[in-house]
Amino acid sequence: MAQQHLDPTDPLSGHLGPSPTGDALAGYLRSQATEFLRALRQHRESGGTAAGAEEPADAARALRRSVRRISASLHTFRPLLDADWSEALRPELAWLSGTLGMEHAYESRLERLLLALHRLSGAVFPAQPRAADVSAGSRAVGTAPVGTAPAPAQDRGSLTVGAAKAGALLDRQLTLARTRAHSTALQALGSSRFHAVADNIAVLASEVPLVQKAVATDLHPMATAAQERLEDAVTALPLVTAGHPYNAEALVHGLSPDPSPHPQDAPWHQVRLLLRLHRYAREVLTPAVDVRLLTAGQCLDRHRDASEAAAAAASAARTPRIAPATAYALGVLHADQRHEVEAARFAFQQCWQKQAVST
Amino acid sequence: MAQQHLDPTDPLSGHLGPSPTGDALAGYLRSQATEFLRALRQHRESGGTAAGAEEPADAARALRRSVRRISASLHTFRPLLDADWSEALRPELAWLSGTLGMEHAYESRLERLLLALHRLSGAVFPAQPRAADVSAGSRAVGTAPVGTAPAPAQDRGSLTVGAAKAGALLDRQLTLARTRAHSTALQALGSSRFHAVADNIAVLASEVPLVQKAVATDLHPMATAAQERLEDAVTALPLVTAGHPYNAEALVHGLSPDPSPHPQDAPWHQVRLLLRLHRYAREVLTPAVDVRLLTAGQCLDRHRDASEAAAAAASAARTPRIAPATAYALGVLHADQRHEVEAARFAFQQCWQKQAVST
Repeated sequence: MAQQHLDPTDPLSGHLGPSPTGDALAGYLRSQATEFLRALRQHRESGGTAAGAEEPADAARALRRSVRRISASLHTFRPLLDADWSEALRPELAWLSGTLGMEHAYESRLERLLLALHRLSGAVFPAQPRAADVSAGSRAVGTAPVGTAPAPAQDRGSLTVGAAKAGALLDRQLTLARTRAHSTALQALGSSRFHAVADNIAVLASEVPLVQKAVATDLHPMATAAQERLEDAVTALPLVTAGHPYNAEALVHGLSPDPSPHPQDAPWHQVRLLLRLHRYAREVLTPAVDVRLLTAGQCLDRHRDASEAAAAAASAARTPRIAPATAYALGVLHADQRHEVEAARFAFQQCWQKQAVST
Repeated sequence: MAQQHLDPTDPLSGHLGPSPTGDALAGYLRSQATEFLRALRQHRESGGTAAGAEEPADAARALRRSVRRISASLHTFRPLLDADWSEALRPELAWLSGTLGMEHAYESRLERLLLALHRLSGAVFPAQPRAADVSAGSRAVGTAPVGTAPAPAQDRGSLTVGAAKAGALLDRQLTLARTRAHSTALQALGSSRFHAVADNIAVLASEVPLVQKAVATDLHPMATAAQERLEDAVTALPLVTAGHPYNAEALVHGLSPDPSPHPQDAPWHQVRLLLRLHRYAREVLTPAVDVRLLTAGQCLDRHRDASEAAAAAASAARTPRIAPATAYALGVLHADQRHEVEAARFAFQQCWQKQAVST
């Protein structure tokens, strides 16, 4: 659909050809709404059957994908859309996106942690087949999660036992969380609240509630504002530190008593959201994909994933009555994921620096 | 004594002026033997008195410094020295260097670990004054180590308690090891074995047992051979991987059941020793200090220190009946030090690359 386009000409500043107006926004919203309806149909057709195990996950992903884009457009191009309609719909989209995303988040968090434990404990760690199993993505929305007994800890020394027990503990905790998220998502998809959102989006697929002036309004100033919000937030990041490898910043206060000891992550999470808003705003203006923006976004996704995985390891370590070897493995795992956080910041800095030079 | 000299002219290949021969080696050995005797006198004069607390540590350092250099020269310039004398003295110097170095090694390991725990747990960690206390270097050979009770763990949440308890545990274990090393070093310095070595070095201060041909033999080929052994060993290191920040290599198998899970460290330790042999061989030929060699050596010292600190944290985690929170903190600490290992490799790679370009 969108073609790869490496030309650094920035559609937000280049202004080649006639400027897109509210018409372009309406077209974009209609196509995203259509995507949503197609994904919803696909999800309902395949829902719950074992045969199409991959399909519900794909459909759920497609649903989230279109919901994020519609929500972002409502935010960035707010002045061009009917205010009452837009203000009513946005929190509903946020609720839907959050609800549908939780199961996948727990699933990929567990996969990330088990793969890390496998890497840390060498080839003998029994959890490896579990990780591969989880990564097959066979447990997403629409398929019933399969409860599995933890692999027995092999007596190869307390550290490996610790890694195996840590893996089993994380598996129990995150599988339980995922199962709950799965039920919540299924309930949500059957609720009247969801049907109201779906009806709203069905209307959007044919008729976008633009304000009268929208048709003649240039979209660029609003898209540029989104870009500037991103750039301001990036400027406030500690990029100089992040650009020095092994700065040991991400693990600072890793043993602090503060239950959320990493407020340092918040500005990066914020930049991740602003980058996504900028990317979606850009999509409205041009079909060209900015590969550098995608890469920068992937760095920040990795940052967020590692940050949450590290928190899950720390949280599992607070489980009462765990063995010291289990706690030790969780400590190693926590630090490993915090270094992944630091590595992701470094990668973002490198990517962003290139971007700044080439545009 | 040796002046700073940044001229990249390599004394091992440049051959400016008349080539140094066995005479230069004899002069170097005499001066190192004299240094040894002076440090020994200083150590005996200040030994054990509280007033000169810094002096025994300085004297012990100076003793080790000259022993390392004499030992290295015996190795590198072996063909020029009386074989029987040299073969008899070298293992004695290795014993002395090893015995005198242990106390300082335990002391700096504890300091490194407590500082890391402090960094990881934020400003509230009670072990901080301990770390500063230890770093004052007041407990080296010749002063009686002071046993201190562990700071009480403050109830600020299990993670901080864990950090405080981990600090207290490491303090107990490494202080005990240091106290034993201290006694062993004192015993060694009073032993007839030591007096035989000291007598040998006293003779060396006036009369170096060169073979007859030594006076006319160019030292360069032997020094160059030492340099080539270093360069071959560096070539075998995984420098490409080390040059990619956050390669996550150092922590691989960190939870492996193998009691020495980091055979990957050995080639780096070996390069550290070969670099020191090259540096000391170079000292015989020229008074010019090669700052890049010093820096590369410091990277490898840091690598060795972090590697051993990580092992000490893992070893402490195997103490029976520790609390899970303590084990968790030790796991975080272990991973932190393994990342220091990785950071040191990266720093060495950067330093070595510069060196390769500029020479």
